[in-house]
Amino acid sequence: MKACQMMEKDFVYVSKDDTIVDVSIKMEETKRFTLPILDESMKLEGWATSLDITKGLREGKKTMSEIMHTIDEIKVVHKDAPAKNVVTDTSEFKLINLPIIDDNEKVIGVVRPFDIIDTMSDLYDIKVYKIYEAMESQLKGITWDELMEASAKVSTRTTGVPITAEQYENNIRKSTFGDAIWATGGLESFFAGLISVGELVIAQKVGNARK
Amino acid sequence: MKACQMMEKDFVYVSKDDTIVDVSIKMEETKRFTLPILDESMKLEGWATSLDITKGLREGKKTMSEIMHTIDEIKVVHKDAPAKNVVTDTSEFKLINLPIIDDNEKVIGVVRPFDIIDTMSDLYDIKVYKIYEAMESQLKGITWDELMEASAKVSTRTTGVPITAEQYENNIRKSTFGDAIWATGGLESFFAGLISVGELVIAQKVGNARK
Repeated sequence: MKACQMMEKDFVYVSKDDTIVDVSIKMEETKRFTLPILDESMKLEGWATSLDITKGLREGKKTMSEIMHTIDEIKVVHKDAPAKNVVTDTSEFKLINLPIIDDNEKVIGVVRPFDIIDTMSDLYDIKVYKIYEAMESQLKGITWDELMEASAKVSTRTTGVPITAEQYENNIRKSTFGDAIWATGGLESFFAGLISVGELVIAQKVGNARK
Repeated sequence: MKACQMMEKDFVYVSKDDTIVDVSIKMEETKRFTLPILDESMKLEGWATSLDITKGLREGKKTMSEIMHTIDEIKVVHKDAPAKNVVTDTSEFKLINLPIIDDNEKVIGVVRPFDIIDTMSDLYDIKVYKIYEAMESQLKGITWDELMEASAKVSTRTTGVPITAEQYENNIRKSTFGDAIWATGGLESFFAGLISVGELVIAQKVGNARK
């Protein structure tokens, strides 16, 4: 995944000649706490936060050029950089907005922490039965019902609470990968459970083939 | 995981009688864009963002009580609520700070989007060999070397690029779950690959047992 796949293309920006008062109103109206300051060709000239604005208002400054941070102080990420760089920079520098630039150093979007959370949440929200479908299509000769039977057995053995194949199937249709990880106590435990199921059905399959 | 396991206990707050000017300076110094307003017993009385402050400064307001949002406008999460609620609220309402309250409605911490990103990143940063270790301990009678041999075979078959067991082991010691998901094209494909490896070693194991 690339940085540009996480960014918002529809972002708010201002010019260094805008007045602080006008920019403060724009920030309030658009609910933006930090803003890029761009030139006419969309190249980054500076950066300002609402905290620079409060200071500027108190001190009677007039235009953004008097209060803005200059480009050497601003983190930027190239559009084709790994999305992971965006996550690392946002987390390390507590960035509310991270500008994404193209080959000509034009700003083409920004990433907000919420964009990162949404992207990461998508992974957590994958339904567990999708993983079972991948398992079914991978394990040729094993039916969905055999997988559910084996899962119910492994679950009953592990938790001590009897569960039928039908109940198990209902559970995995409702629960997400995120639920499963919190419930089993981590990625490794979740995967260990899946492997137990795989072990059981594969042993049956190999056994049947040898009959 | 509970909401309180994600929160920062060391948070900044102010009183409704503080002046807007004092609070603006406090926000600038602590680099906080939004702040809870608490009474003497740490109960939530209101909320203010740096954008409420810019408006207040422009309009010549004096104290926080004149500009703060009242508690009916503020999202809060109970400390024992699922961490997932924190993620959902932060993402949906684009919250820079989400207050966590205890049974007595006292604010005991706040969650920032960065805390969520850090927690989620921990999952992505799990090394792939940790998942293999879970697989090894689950599959009694299968050795680590057999797992690496099977993985190298499956990888060579899938990618068309020959790889030795030793090279494969080096790869999984370096790469993370996050890397693997981006590389294989998704959670389901990643698991499908692991299941192929499981299938190969289990078939060998069952075969050996029958000899």
